[in-house]
Amino acid sequence: MSLPTTISELAPRLRAREISPVEITRACLDRIEKLNQSLNAFITVTAESALVDARAAEEEILRGHWRGPLHGIPISLKDLIDTAGVRTTSASALHKDRVPTQDAEVVRRLRQAGAVIVGKNNLHECAYGGSSLVSYFGDVHNPWDHAHISGGSSGGSAAAVSAGLAYAAIGTDTAGSIREPAALCGCVGIKPTYGRVPSRGVIPLSLSLDHVGPLTSSVADAAIVLQAIAGYDPADLTTPNVAVADYIGALREDAKSLRVGVLREYFFDDLNPEVVAAMEHALKGIETLVAEMKEVRLDVPTDRTLQIAEAFAYHAENVAGTPELYLPETLRRIRKGEAITAPEYIQCRRDLEAARRSIAHTFADVDVLIAPTMPMPAPAIADLKADPDALRPAELKLLRNTRPFNVWGLPAISVPCGFTQSGLPIGLQIAGPRWREDLVLRLAHAYEQSTAWHKRRLV
Amino acid sequence: MSLPTTISELAPRLRAREISPVEITRACLDRIEKLNQSLNAFITVTAESALVDARAAEEEILRGHWRGPLHGIPISLKDLIDTAGVRTTSASALHKDRVPTQDAEVVRRLRQAGAVIVGKNNLHECAYGGSSLVSYFGDVHNPWDHAHISGGSSGGSAAAVSAGLAYAAIGTDTAGSIREPAALCGCVGIKPTYGRVPSRGVIPLSLSLDHVGPLTSSVADAAIVLQAIAGYDPADLTTPNVAVADYIGALREDAKSLRVGVLREYFFDDLNPEVVAAMEHALKGIETLVAEMKEVRLDVPTDRTLQIAEAFAYHAENVAGTPELYLPETLRRIRKGEAITAPEYIQCRRDLEAARRSIAHTFADVDVLIAPTMPMPAPAIADLKADPDALRPAELKLLRNTRPFNVWGLPAISVPCGFTQSGLPIGLQIAGPRWREDLVLRLAHAYEQSTAWHKRRLV
Repeated sequence: MSLPTTISELAPRLRAREISPVEITRACLDRIEKLNQSLNAFITVTAESALVDARAAEEEILRGHWRGPLHGIPISLKDLIDTAGVRTTSASALHKDRVPTQDAEVVRRLRQAGAVIVGKNNLHECAYGGSSLVSYFGDVHNPWDHAHISGGSSGGSAAAVSAGLAYAAIGTDTAGSIREPAALCGCVGIKPTYGRVPSRGVIPLSLSLDHVGPLTSSVADAAIVLQAIAGYDPADLTTPNVAVADYIGALREDAKSLRVGVLREYFFDDLNPEVVAAMEHALKGIETLVAEMKEVRLDVPTDRTLQIAEAFAYHAENVAGTPELYLPETLRRIRKGEAITAPEYIQCRRDLEAARRSIAHTFADVDVLIAPTMPMPAPAIADLKADPDALRPAELKLLRNTRPFNVWGLPAISVPCGFTQSGLPIGLQIAGPRWREDLVLRLAHAYEQSTAWHKRRLV
Repeated sequence: MSLPTTISELAPRLRAREISPVEITRACLDRIEKLNQSLNAFITVTAESALVDARAAEEEILRGHWRGPLHGIPISLKDLIDTAGVRTTSASALHKDRVPTQDAEVVRRLRQAGAVIVGKNNLHECAYGGSSLVSYFGDVHNPWDHAHISGGSSGGSAAAVSAGLAYAAIGTDTAGSIREPAALCGCVGIKPTYGRVPSRGVIPLSLSLDHVGPLTSSVADAAIVLQAIAGYDPADLTTPNVAVADYIGALREDAKSLRVGVLREYFFDDLNPEVVAAMEHALKGIETLVAEMKEVRLDVPTDRTLQIAEAFAYHAENVAGTPELYLPETLRRIRKGEAITAPEYIQCRRDLEAARRSIAHTFADVDVLIAPTMPMPAPAIADLKADPDALRPAELKLLRNTRPFNVWGLPAISVPCGFTQSGLPIGLQIAGPRWREDLVLRLAHAYEQSTAWHKRRLV
């Protein structure tokens, strides 16, 4: 008998003691053993401690203490999320022997919820890119076609979830680093509202734009994981004390009352024809699910100066002291921030605040926004490696439709909405107002349930 | 018969039509006429439009439409607060002919409340100093002794209120620029929580530290003015959508339940003996009014890099293009920000966020904090002018006890707590948690009512 492939199917059976956390953890570890060599989705596998934790979860559940839907669920972490006693490398030689003494706050919350951490996922070095082809630990491969990229920077996390090496993974997203790999690998990825999930204990890329969030096999699973990690952390600088909505409960409501804004201008520019076809098909489907659908035009922020300045600020000391520990491409990207002056940065911060303030008005007319997650399916690794100047433009294009939501700080999810003829996944992006992850999840779930894309699986 | 000297006494009589807004406006304009030449508290007097507005207020009130306690009340504005059609100079040659086409949001709110704008107050050039001895329009003088400074940068506003040239004035406070002149001139000045009052249409000094707030003759008047100008402005970048408390209502509650923290460490260092004596006397009095009083020690932020960087960023273009339009001392101050790098600034912003986050914990044990507003009474103008190197250190010392509350973003008020032997006012500072101006006003009012200091007046 095959094991359930989603948390929402698995959790009740763990609770009912029909399946043991140990069994499910072993299954994930077996798949990692079998598939990680080709995918390179994990930098570190914590098999031993995972089995200890799984056994503890098993015992607790047997004693009748069920912590909730993450109890006994194998989860992996992007390897820039601190884990006490387990190296956290940022996929860089710079941190290859760095062993934190404390868990990041999201890890503490996951453990509290009973999750079993199976390992640390490979990523684009220092999270500074969208391909995961620049990593001290080597390239990550797309589970649907190993000759293609997994996306990035949370490339290992997306590959792990899509290939069934973990039931969920925690990633980070500064310009699309959760949603873009989720889309390219055919899983679900949600970037919550800026400040919704604590980033304390997570190595930053750009503090004003970084978001922590889950990658999962279904929208319901995204709701379950987000529910466990969202919320105020008095010691975190980004999380305000705003109540967390009932994300799991939100899925029980249908989408019939929702007014949907479709972002065509900018977001549909220069799209791969197969992405266009998938999007048009998805839009037709969504139109039947919701109250209203209309086109919305936005002033889209595209400037990257803020991100470049903040990334340089974080790395400045190491770039000066041990530049050789960065891969050359990463060093090049970081050094772009060297010339940005304080007045330029201050203007960028001001622009960010203005963009976050003005985007709110959009939601007077619509409840959620829809756009393609990425303009094209996962490029072939060979194509990007053939020309050293091809990588960055390709990455920037891949992140073109996700980046604006980091500037706006709005919650945005990517859900599968089709496949190319050659079998590569395509993603649909749904965004909502600040703190309204519930709306985003509601439409994403209704859409997912109305299609069969999520049933086309590798596991 | 003499006219009431506070808004809270005057408002019911205006409402009852015992006094006319025109009469009261004329009285202020007469006093300006008589006293401004020696005080230099006003850059621009809007006598004509004030009388037009006063007549309109009179008509409305006669028709039975009373807008509230500011209806028909003469108020003046620091001359960096935009007024449509009336020049707004920042006390600088740079802006001496600058005539805004729109009112600042606070001005719009004051007019909406029926206030009569009588003119624009002199200030320290570009708000970049605490003495008001650097102004294109000349020095401001302290109404209690013209040989002494009024403080700054809202020096003209404090002098205007203390000398009865206006019933209230709106100032700005980046390091103490409302509270310090209020203390030196013997009036009340409150800097609200960061983001409580919109700064849209106010020429900035340092966007992360700037606060807009009222200077008044009593705590009750501060509550009345703050009530009119506080609250969310969708077009302002700093005001979140947080409900405004009932400040006027808060004054009806006594202070008996309040736990007071006294800031001695740092805040009592190197104090003028007459300030010490006044403070100790005030503390004894307050102890009898409240539930509990104890010493509190805080990690006090003193670094000025953030302010210097933001001031430079705002002025960079003009400093490069027309440096000769700044007074030399202002140019020197602004240029200090030239060398600050983006990474240094980014670290300062991060420190600011950390300080604002961590200060909240202080209020687990106490409801409000008390400290001296300034370490010494108003210095003599001649002393500061005798030595060109004496001005800045004296200003920095004067702002030493107010500046930390700008970093913390907490509401803080200065109320009169005594006079020196030579008749110069001394101020007591009360601060509270974020958004809790009501607590600050409550204790300030209870203290004020328990002393006679506010009865010692120039009017």
